[in-house]
Amino acid sequence: MATHKFKPTHYWNTLGTHPHVLKVAPGDTVLTTCVDARGLDHNDQQATPPGNPMTGPFYVEGATPGDTLVVRLEKLRPNRKRGWSGVLLASNVIDPDDVAKLAQAGDGQGRWDWEVDAETGTAKLNHPSSPLHGFGLELDPMLGCFGVAASGGQAISTATSGAHGGNMDYRGFREGVTVYFPVFAEGGLFFLGDGHALQGDGEVCGTGIEISMDVQFTLELIKGQKIEWPRGENQEYIFTVGNARPLDQCVQHASSEMLRWLTTSYGLDTAHASLLMGQTVRYDLGNIFDPAYTMVCKMPKKLLERLE
Amino acid sequence: MATHKFKPTHYWNTLGTHPHVLKVAPGDTVLTTCVDARGLDHNDQQATPPGNPMTGPFYVEGATPGDTLVVRLEKLRPNRKRGWSGVLLASNVIDPDDVAKLAQAGDGQGRWDWEVDAETGTAKLNHPSSPLHGFGLELDPMLGCFGVAASGGQAISTATSGAHGGNMDYRGFREGVTVYFPVFAEGGLFFLGDGHALQGDGEVCGTGIEISMDVQFTLELIKGQKIEWPRGENQEYIFTVGNARPLDQCVQHASSEMLRWLTTSYGLDTAHASLLMGQTVRYDLGNIFDPAYTMVCKMPKKLLERLE
Amino acid sequence: MATHKFKPTHYWNTLGTHPHVLKVAPGDTVLTTCVDARGLDHNDQQATPPGNPMTGPFYVEGATPGDTLVVRLEKLRPNRKRGWSGVLLASNVIDPDDVAKLAQAGDGQGRWDWEVDAETGTAKLNHPSSPLHGFGLELDPMLGCFGVAASGGQAISTATSGAHGGNMDYRGFREGVTVYFPVFAEGGLFFLGDGHALQGDGEVCGTGIEISMDVQFTLELIKGQKIEWPRGENQEYIFTVGNARPLDQCVQHASSEMLRWLTTSYGLDTAHASLLMGQTVRYDLGNIFDPAYTMVCKMPKKLLERLE
Amino acid sequence: MATHKFKPTHYWNTLGTHPHVLKVAPGDTVLTTCVDARGLDHNDQQATPPGNPMTGPFYVEGATPGDTLVVRLEKLRPNRKRGWSGVLLASNVIDPDDVAKLAQAGDGQGRWDWEVDAETGTAKLNHPSSPLHGFGLELDPMLGCFGVAASGGQAISTATSGAHGGNMDYRGFREGVTVYFPVFAEGGLFFLGDGHALQGDGEVCGTGIEISMDVQFTLELIKGQKIEWPRGENQEYIFTVGNARPLDQCVQHASSEMLRWLTTSYGLDTAHASLLMGQTVRYDLGNIFDPAYTMVCKMPKKLLERLE
Repeated sequence: MATHKFKPTHYWNTLGTHPHVLKVAPGDTVLTTCVDARGLDHNDQQATPPGNPMTGPFYVEGATPGDTLVVRLEKLRPNRKRGWSGVLLASNVIDPDDVAKLAQAGDGQGRWDWEVDAETGTAKLNHPSSPLHGFGLELDPMLGCFGVAASGGQAISTATSGAHGGNMDYRGFREGVTVYFPVFAEGGLFFLGDGHALQGDGEVCGTGIEISMDVQFTLELIKGQKIEWPRGENQEYIFTVGNARPLDQCVQHASSEMLRWLTTSYGLDTAHASLLMGQTVRYDLGNIFDPAYTMVCKMPKKLLERLE
Repeated sequence: MATHKFKPTHYWNTLGTHPHVLKVAPGDTVLTTCVDARGLDHNDQQATPPGNPMTGPFYVEGATPGDTLVVRLEKLRPNRKRGWSGVLLASNVIDPDDVAKLAQAGDGQGRWDWEVDAETGTAKLNHPSSPLHGFGLELDPMLGCFGVAASGGQAISTATSGAHGGNMDYRGFREGVTVYFPVFAEGGLFFLGDGHALQGDGEVCGTGIEISMDVQFTLELIKGQKIEWPRGENQEYIFTVGNARPLDQCVQHASSEMLRWLTTSYGLDTAHASLLMGQTVRYDLGNIFDPAYTMVCKMPKKLLERLE
Repeated sequence: MATHKFKPTHYWNTLGTHPHVLKVAPGDTVLTTCVDARGLDHNDQQATPPGNPMTGPFYVEGATPGDTLVVRLEKLRPNRKRGWSGVLLASNVIDPDDVAKLAQAGDGQGRWDWEVDAETGTAKLNHPSSPLHGFGLELDPMLGCFGVAASGGQAISTATSGAHGGNMDYRGFREGVTVYFPVFAEGGLFFLGDGHALQGDGEVCGTGIEISMDVQFTLELIKGQKIEWPRGENQEYIFTVGNARPLDQCVQHASSEMLRWLTTSYGLDTAHASLLMGQTVRYDLGNIFDPAYTMVCKMPKKLLERLE
Repeated sequence: MATHKFKPTHYWNTLGTHPHVLKVAPGDTVLTTCVDARGLDHNDQQATPPGNPMTGPFYVEGATPGDTLVVRLEKLRPNRKRGWSGVLLASNVIDPDDVAKLAQAGDGQGRWDWEVDAETGTAKLNHPSSPLHGFGLELDPMLGCFGVAASGGQAISTATSGAHGGNMDYRGFREGVTVYFPVFAEGGLFFLGDGHALQGDGEVCGTGIEISMDVQFTLELIKGQKIEWPRGENQEYIFTVGNARPLDQCVQHASSEMLRWLTTSYGLDTAHASLLMGQTVRYDLGNIFDPAYTMVCKMPKKLLERLE
């Protein structure tokens, strides 16, 4: 159970079978850093071109296609003061007939800064010309984009997402969560980046409060367990993640994956898994901005514990 | 501020300009009952044909098109012991290639009973052949279908929903919530029914735990305030409701309505309303089963209070 | 086989169980007129409020729910000189990020006139300030909105469509076509209107070249044949019509209906109907503008004749 | 204007920046072969693993990102006798509630053979147990999957499609068509494969009649012309191609691209381009089976010629 400190020197804008930067054993912990979505590091310097640059990939010894990679996100800590966000709602999240309104929003076309204050746990708007200059929101750091090398030798842009994870922009990917990815390539090849100091559901203005981060995570391996879509768990819920368009298909992917999970690991048949999902399932909207959207299907752990 | 007790003698399966059963003044309170989705009353007797039969309509004096009808749901109390629910996931909420599995789920094709116990606050599965017979879930009563006469002289089936409300099947429509509907016809014409003892997000097995109810609500009127989609508020959030297909369009309707609300009533311009939505908005999935789906866009009241 | 001349004196903006204007026997022919989408008649006079006003309904003796109403569109003849159309693409048919462009298109925000010339068979743009003033397009008259009283006692706006037909805006509904509708109410109750001198696929600028019409049609009845969605046939194809959102669901409705048709009337099992659809089916886009979109699934008659 | 004969020795299952197999000058012609979707060659031998294996990539001298690659498909000739197809409709093209029917279709779950006869120009069903054994359909050879290296260093599976082309499965990609692709990588890197002896709209049973082919094409280059989505032209139409999900978004991409084309190359402003599209545009359904669907937006050349 080694702990590795890794300082990235280059980054990737696709999730594919790129040369690994570090080989780790299952159970190992990694401390590293991520630049922000535009490639700016902890000094707010351009470390690499923009577009969700990824730290990694990390190769997990013994991981082969058909396994499940386990990622425990132990620390997600913004490592500089300045965050930034988009302002206007994305044109696809409001009624088409309302889109023209957005064109008349002055300096809202650009990006505004936020001052991220770890001590008070807030991000304060830092846009002097705004009447809300200084307005604070509570920090809730998360990773926007992370995952493994995509299937079939593909290299998929960090702008989008799929069964391999990627740019899911789900605010539930915060400190303390455990995430499961299907392994498609030797070593799994784990990538991470695109930190958000906080984000609303849907990433509806196209960004969270974007920021570079110090990250600590532990990688484990479940040999021979094949999953179809990312899964996860936190203290309250187990959950599954569907990445696609439209949102309806995200729900289908996530619900099908939950049905598989409940019927293979919780002793339920299709009828009983359905029955319990019907009355107790919760869905979260990850993002409705990226090329592939994200919906999350959650089942309460307390309920599942009562089944045993 | 009169209180009316109203005992329904007939029901409607469409929301349209039907003759009203009671005329009330703004501020009046109504105590009445609803049969369940299949038309079964508090004695479990068939009171009317199935298909979300509605109690009402209630005519609010002075309501004219362009106003907003305010509905405070004060009491939603299941009034009999037996509830029932569908079992299997609906065929549209899982991946198409997984649908065939559902056909092999034995007596899951039917409906199963639940015993609703107001004292313990639980619904217990009452299906003796099931290994989960007696398994209990916490009650969280809600209305599946309610709203006003639809626009333009339409009469819209209680199977579906729209700008007038209808079969939204959102579990946030529980006791204590206030709901706002656009008025499309003289008197508004408020209808209600389709009680659920509880329901998961999405109504993914096609029903909640369906049950008849005693209901108390108060109707008020906001003259001259035109809204486009249903709105609501509870202790934590103001929210807007989009009813359409696919879910993407629900999000568009609900987000556009929230943008209107924030810019007309909270002193925000498009840029600042967008900025705050981007980082703090929450979306709930109402239903993904009915002909029109439902998504809800929520903004935290605590945040909005800090704007003033 | 009577022929009725009917001159409308009032119109409907919903398709529901309204009082019929004429009772006809199966096999009877009707000659009547339709106002245009904005309620303007053959004299270009406002005969009734706008919104696809319908002539009818026509009651077919003997028609009861579960039957199929057959409509032969024998003559569709624009009956005045002036047509009009929208100009700009609808905001929902282009990429959301391109919508703002539309706001800058000057007098394109409005409606432009066309001169419809039956002799030359053309519609000529009549917009003197346009460089294309006088530009001609070939006439191809069609009905945008027609159908029967909707199911379950509903009254559905003529802005939209469903299993009962309605505002399908499919340019294949031209002279010579036979259309089949499910009967949901006693007498079927056939309505028609919304003539277009011509229209592109999709009705992507929100209108065809809108015009009033003289219409001749014959109504017949297939007792006891229950269909789920509108069907039709012309010289080359049999076809089925799906009305919904998104287009994906239109395709599902239309394809399911075609599968039913082929397996119940053409002696094919599911495998063979699928096989032939797979290699020979054609789909047309009716409209992608109205609240419900329309896609049409077509199978070549020549192919089907070879099956017998 | 050289003519190159190229015999492939290996194939690709992604469209990315793979080492080119041949460098050609703009204007050069290539004669080569493609294996079928499962990797079977002209001798019906397994030449490479299945999954739309691609011949290529071909590097065009001088092509750099921001250019347009022009592909003239001059010959598409099935080069063996045996074709094969799926049988059953895909589960996503019919109503979810009808999907279970498909499970009961016996040997329709598999693939059936067709005998492709170049002399008679027909493909005859070669499935002795079928009552339609020997039934013939007219050949209309096309390429299912072809395109260029994807943007941003991605390698995209040949199962799907995007701005770079890929698995569009549009039956309009037949002999005689000219196709335009955006260049995203040095040399463009053109790939091709997945021949179909014929196919219906939508590829609704998941395949055309799949077959290996002899292909002749000519590659040209338009320096400095940046396009966003594939374009094409045949004798009757210019057309644009949108690849996405749902179909609605395909229409948006294709319509936006057509609007760009008409306003940049045909002297039309937004209003007039819209006006003409509204009344004369045609849409074809490419596929509604692959991960990304395909719709095609077409404008008649005869009309456009009258503009000049």
